[in-house]
Amino acid sequence: MTSLLIRNARPMGAAPADILIRDGRIAAIGPDLQAEGVAEEQAGGRIAIPGLVDTHTHVDKGLIGYPWYVNEVGPRLIDKIDNERRVKRELGLDPHVQSMRHVLQCLGYGTTLVRTHVDIDTDQGLAALEGVVETRHALAGQVEIEIVAFPQSGLLRRPGTVELVDAAMSAGADLVGGLDPCGMDRDPKGHLDAIFAIAEKHGKGIDIHLHEGGEMGAFSMDLIFERIRAHDMRGKVAVSHAFCLGMPDWNASQALIDQCAELDVPILTTAPPSREVPALKRLHAAGVRFGAGVDGFRDTWGPYGNGDMLERAMLLGMRNNLRRDDEVAMALDVCTTGGARAMDRADHALVPGGRGDVVLAEGESLADAVVSHAPRALVVTAGRVVARNGASLTVAP
Amino acid sequence: MTSLLIRNARPMGAAPADILIRDGRIAAIGPDLQAEGVAEEQAGGRIAIPGLVDTHTHVDKGLIGYPWYVNEVGPRLIDKIDNERRVKRELGLDPHVQSMRHVLQCLGYGTTLVRTHVDIDTDQGLAALEGVVETRHALAGQVEIEIVAFPQSGLLRRPGTVELVDAAMSAGADLVGGLDPCGMDRDPKGHLDAIFAIAEKHGKGIDIHLHEGGEMGAFSMDLIFERIRAHDMRGKVAVSHAFCLGMPDWNASQALIDQCAELDVPILTTAPPSREVPALKRLHAAGVRFGAGVDGFRDTWGPYGNGDMLERAMLLGMRNNLRRDDEVAMALDVCTTGGARAMDRADHALVPGGRGDVVLAEGESLADAVVSHAPRALVVTAGRVVARNGASLTVAP
Repeated sequence: MTSLLIRNARPMGAAPADILIRDGRIAAIGPDLQAEGVAEEQAGGRIAIPGLVDTHTHVDKGLIGYPWYVNEVGPRLIDKIDNERRVKRELGLDPHVQSMRHVLQCLGYGTTLVRTHVDIDTDQGLAALEGVVETRHALAGQVEIEIVAFPQSGLLRRPGTVELVDAAMSAGADLVGGLDPCGMDRDPKGHLDAIFAIAEKHGKGIDIHLHEGGEMGAFSMDLIFERIRAHDMRGKVAVSHAFCLGMPDWNASQALIDQCAELDVPILTTAPPSREVPALKRLHAAGVRFGAGVDGFRDTWGPYGNGDMLERAMLLGMRNNLRRDDEVAMALDVCTTGGARAMDRADHALVPGGRGDVVLAEGESLADAVVSHAPRALVVTAGRVVARNGASLTVAP
Repeated sequence: MTSLLIRNARPMGAAPADILIRDGRIAAIGPDLQAEGVAEEQAGGRIAIPGLVDTHTHVDKGLIGYPWYVNEVGPRLIDKIDNERRVKRELGLDPHVQSMRHVLQCLGYGTTLVRTHVDIDTDQGLAALEGVVETRHALAGQVEIEIVAFPQSGLLRRPGTVELVDAAMSAGADLVGGLDPCGMDRDPKGHLDAIFAIAEKHGKGIDIHLHEGGEMGAFSMDLIFERIRAHDMRGKVAVSHAFCLGMPDWNASQALIDQCAELDVPILTTAPPSREVPALKRLHAAGVRFGAGVDGFRDTWGPYGNGDMLERAMLLGMRNNLRRDDEVAMALDVCTTGGARAMDRADHALVPGGRGDVVLAEGESLADAVVSHAPRALVVTAGRVVARNGASLTVAP
């Protein structure tokens, strides 16, 4: 928890001002602030935004530092999953090293709060979790990492996984994960009952990957809603991707969105251009908490992405056809303050009293900063300078 | 028409080789080429690709060099069109200066062949065309510019525009443009009859903007097909955007695609993430020529884009869910050789005999070059070095 005075920044693209951070929190924003004995940084008129918030990524299994992975994987989800397990084994991928590389690259882009899904399976047991927990310790004070115990290879189809996810919750995981209850485990009741039981036992929340589209996704959402009610878990269950909320049948999708609002189910998107997605303005109108993430990158799933949440804000804006400056600002909010709110952090904002995470971005305007997403000049976490000129000060292993 | 020997490049990401350009054409690709008296460039192992091809942009009305345009425009197409005409008038935008800035920025990214739609309307008459024709002369030998006379404000709704488009065809335009025959002019027969009459009179081709989706777009496509048959214009009429080819009804959209193949109608996309779009593999399978473009950028329409066709290849890949390396290469092909073919250039390829347009891109692999789209080290047009390190050698006004 440090103090810092950032001179001559443009908070959210507004007129130049100084930003004073005291003991890790924003103490004041205004012209010509004075603070004896506090270190200073010159923003040079750059735009100041809150720390970027990545609500959906996979830090444990990217291939940063390895040669380019030539993707020749088959078209089905299970092809990608089986291929990934094999590649990880063959390369002897070290989850701690890879997650350090991943998180530090993202920190260079200004991401100071991350929710990551970490693979739990019968091949590697809790090794990925342990590696990411080690990374979380190593980078404490620079970036906050929330861990979801994620049964990437299925929960029921590979016996022993339920027990491993249960064990993960005592070994440092913050939330229970799940994956396509119909499509993956072919047993939606069994899958969801198992997840909710583990969450209830440990008093933790849930974040479920739901790629299932249309009516199948709607069915899985319905089963999730039933269990939120039964387990009294309002506000504790998030759904990632949730493509079914973008299904064309307005009545069907609106019924789901209304229940997300009623049961306070945060929706976390990666805004893929190739899929139906939950629409930003529609979720806003319904009052549903909404975050965004870069998903995996530089991995065996596909070539796109680099960890930059400003690029993701651009993609989110493009996916939602947000063209006006005030609309692009909405996309950026989802990638900062709004995403933090979806992760139950109410204080992640560039306002007095807010957490002292500040990113200096290039651009004439806030929208320009999003569209250009040039390397960040400075990244500050709770008053501490953690990255300069696009690179973290801590060097990745 | 110059000669140049590029040493130690990786053509299309393959093993290192030299590339010899003689008199503007690729003479040889191979190891340790010898060429007395020919200038040399060191590629340093970078990936060599053909010149990028932008088949759909608007060079005459971007705001490069002006302060950031704060977009507060209304949601309808006509809001954007009327707003743009007003802004151009108020700023006194110089189409020659703006098109120089636009094209040179794109050239810095490696675009050596461009098709641009240039506004023809009763406000500015042929001024935009004249400015772009001047730019075409000024940049001859560096970038090839094909001009579409584009009735952006409608052809029939503003009397006098038909005559202006007709005049444009004698003043340097290469193709007749059109725009949403139903949605814009509210008179599809009148709009299309007028366009085809001008094209026939001047013996030129056509490139129509068709944003109309679903059944309305299918109707307009049908009217276009009828006139291609009636005027015997197979291979001479391209359709830009063509969102209706992405309509969910497979039978309806396939019937349109099959006719595009039969009548050799090139489809030119900007791959917007927010709209239904023609699918790359589907058009390939049908044998339809397919190009891509950056559309307008840094203008009054929206904030996205910068003119980089490698970024566009990434967006095209993401929009089409192309994840395998061989699939990403397909997206890049649409942005180079395939796009050129859609513009009737059969010789735009990195092969002996091909046009000597070469771009050096950063990356471990071809897919990496697309996804990273880092600044280009070198751009060569017909053997002449025209850009280095992301910037054109000719300085924009």
